[in-house]
Amino acid sequence: MKQANTTISIHTARQGLFEITRDIQSWLSGTGVQNGLLTVFCRHTSASLTIQENADPDVQYDIETFFKQLVREDPSLYTHVNEGADDMPAHIRSALTDVSLSIPVIDGQAVLGTWQGVFLYEHRARDHHRQVVLQVMGDGA
Amino acid sequence: MKQANTTISIHTARQGLFEITRDIQSWLSGTGVQNGLLTVFCRHTSASLTIQENADPDVQYDIETFFKQLVREDPSLYTHVNEGADDMPAHIRSALTDVSLSIPVIDGQAVLGTWQGVFLYEHRARDHHRQVVLQVMGDGA
Amino acid sequence: MKQANTTISIHTARQGLFEITRDIQSWLSGTGVQNGLLTVFCRHTSASLTIQENADPDVQYDIETFFKQLVREDPSLYTHVNEGADDMPAHIRSALTDVSLSIPVIDGQAVLGTWQGVFLYEHRARDHHRQVVLQVMGDGA
Repeated sequence: MKQANTTISIHTARQGLFEITRDIQSWLSGTGVQNGLLTVFCRHTSASLTIQENADPDVQYDIETFFKQLVREDPSLYTHVNEGADDMPAHIRSALTDVSLSIPVIDGQAVLGTWQGVFLYEHRARDHHRQVVLQVMGDGA
Repeated sequence: MKQANTTISIHTARQGLFEITRDIQSWLSGTGVQNGLLTVFCRHTSASLTIQENADPDVQYDIETFFKQLVREDPSLYTHVNEGADDMPAHIRSALTDVSLSIPVIDGQAVLGTWQGVFLYEHRARDHHRQVVLQVMGDGA
Repeated sequence: MKQANTTISIHTARQGLFEITRDIQSWLSGTGVQNGLLTVFCRHTSASLTIQENADPDVQYDIETFFKQLVREDPSLYTHVNEGADDMPAHIRSALTDVSLSIPVIDGQAVLGTWQGVFLYEHRARDHHRQVVLQVMGDGA
């Protein structure tokens, strides 16, 4: 049984989804783990993770539109308002989506379905550098 | 430390919850893992996973009613509409629920609470065959 | 590769977030695991888990306010009503948040970000004693 971890940094400059599937698969291949478990963890409370269809970019647009309407950026709705109108909504959107993902690894590949991509979901409008930790445990080659 | 994995297929023909707790417990028993970690992963972006009360079927009905009202099947709300009125809502509902579940295993059993059942949550109306990957790592007997 | 698990009990007497970060870090230190994977699992269907900002308590207040408005405690909306007006909303709120969290461990620490705290999220108003299972697998010192 072997394990490895790394931290990737994603530069975001708008609200919405940023795909990190290739970064994950590329790092995973380098670890030499053939069968085991991959964990993806987001170290923030105003950005999160989601697995979504990565074929049609309209899906990502509609996801963002839905969450923007569901969690309104209206400071009169919140008490935590001193970090900006999109800060408390960002925390709520993070609660509604995922902070960690657990993906089995078989034959050296994360078992994502045909249409599944892994995305960092940025909930704040201004520039951020986001950290995502990858960890894998399993049997090597 | 040992590990095992399998893929189970669930035939769905309506929107709503399909319990897979027994399939999971049965497979887990056969692996011989006594203490460790069980991962459940859904390989789709229009179906997902959830752990819910499995005693009263009304709970499953109310869950589906809530999500149908929260994420409306109205194509005028979305840009990704060419796969059917329930397709984009299915992606959003998947983002709001779970794609992966991590359940500790103690004494050969997943540590589900008394009322907890594991469900595939189908978000599309027409027939699908859904794949769920199970993976366990831990100490054997 | 070593592993350990424990169950912590949290006494709740109101709806809202109860931080368990210190309980987790303290237990983790005692296990001696230096690098690996920590899993947090909630054994209930009317309480759940979330990772949130733990600096400003207003965030916790706003989270609870949002979920109370999103999932209304109005029995006329549900068929599962015999366990109280906050019971079916509790199940829905659990589906919208997390039942399990997977957090990599590096150098003996869960890799939580600076502002991230782990919380039990109680969705019912009356007294409960909630069970959260912690499990860690990894390399020892």
